[in-house]
Amino acid sequence: MSGRFITLEGGEGVGKSTQIRALAAALAGRGIESVVTREPGGSVGAEAIRALLMEGSDDRWDVRSEALLFAAARADHVARTIRPAIERGAWVLCDRFVDSSRAYQGGGGGITDADIMALHGFGSLGLLPDRTFLLTVGADEAARRLAARDAGGADRMGSKPADYQARLAARFAEMAASEPARWRVIEADAPADAVTAAILADLQEWLA
Amino acid sequence: MSGRFITLEGGEGVGKSTQIRALAAALAGRGIESVVTREPGGSVGAEAIRALLMEGSDDRWDVRSEALLFAAARADHVARTIRPAIERGAWVLCDRFVDSSRAYQGGGGGITDADIMALHGFGSLGLLPDRTFLLTVGADEAARRLAARDAGGADRMGSKPADYQARLAARFAEMAASEPARWRVIEADAPADAVTAAILADLQEWLA
Repeated sequence: MSGRFITLEGGEGVGKSTQIRALAAALAGRGIESVVTREPGGSVGAEAIRALLMEGSDDRWDVRSEALLFAAARADHVARTIRPAIERGAWVLCDRFVDSSRAYQGGGGGITDADIMALHGFGSLGLLPDRTFLLTVGADEAARRLAARDAGGADRMGSKPADYQARLAARFAEMAASEPARWRVIEADAPADAVTAAILADLQEWLA
Repeated sequence: MSGRFITLEGGEGVGKSTQIRALAAALAGRGIESVVTREPGGSVGAEAIRALLMEGSDDRWDVRSEALLFAAARADHVARTIRPAIERGAWVLCDRFVDSSRAYQGGGGGITDADIMALHGFGSLGLLPDRTFLLTVGADEAARRLAARDAGGADRMGSKPADYQARLAARFAEMAASEPARWRVIEADAPADAVTAAILADLQEWLA
């Protein structure tokens, strides 16, 4: 039996890592092995590339080098962690994947969505998730969560102004709308256990 | 005045770095600024990526991640070192460039020459040298030089069997033949100063 590949996407502070932990626990309760992972990173090589991407000043990398580094990290993550797990029947639960590159890098600095997908086609043979959950929160709630998080300091990928977050949310919504068979939009303003229940309800067909 | 972009290519131990130092000295004698650089590396970011590529075991990276890392390093090298130098009128003398990726990565492990050039088109906007010198030595001389070098230890890109070196030499020769306006083949079995003289003779049109 082949496993499933599930990704969670959305802006910062929408609860992706909380939901992934809850999903892993729910799958374990049903006797299903899951592999919890995240991008950039998720394999030894990809974590080394992650360090290059996260450290240093804002202008450490130009946008093209950065897009290639994300694609390199993803290729390693797919080859060493994600594909082997799916092939042995595990479910892979991944916090961000190529859609985050499309939302964050694609469309800015002269890099198109087609460029990002071409790099993904080369590096990861175009692997896409079986299901992608886009977690959304209202603008006020997003600002509140980000402010709480920023008190702890930010890295190179750290917080950007509110209008940037709004453009990002619009790009995610557009991707979800353009590929409805893969994406589900989940309103994540609700309590965490209600969000988990909504995600599990959607996955019933594969859990039954 | 815009500068020139010159690369030296060929297998290990053919004398590329020796020739680049001699060329830089000859240019300095004519009052021309040169920037001596090499790949992978040549900028702060690219040197950090070089460390990832050179360290670790032979199978640290799969071929796709490796090709993306080389392209990322090259994009940074071009954006931060090569283009600014050419734009201020300096000559850039570079030990290996995209042609080394084409010779070493292209055509192996399912990666085509077109793949390598597509990554180069994205990352470095397809920048090609004004002139590329392919330094060649006979198989016996190459083996002798490699043996002398191996006494000092080898890294991840280190020496491969003789048939590998022969295939590599054939790929370089093929590239040179397919683009004769850019490439010059220089027999580097001769004494170093004779090789330098041959290179400088070819560059006379730009030095006059």
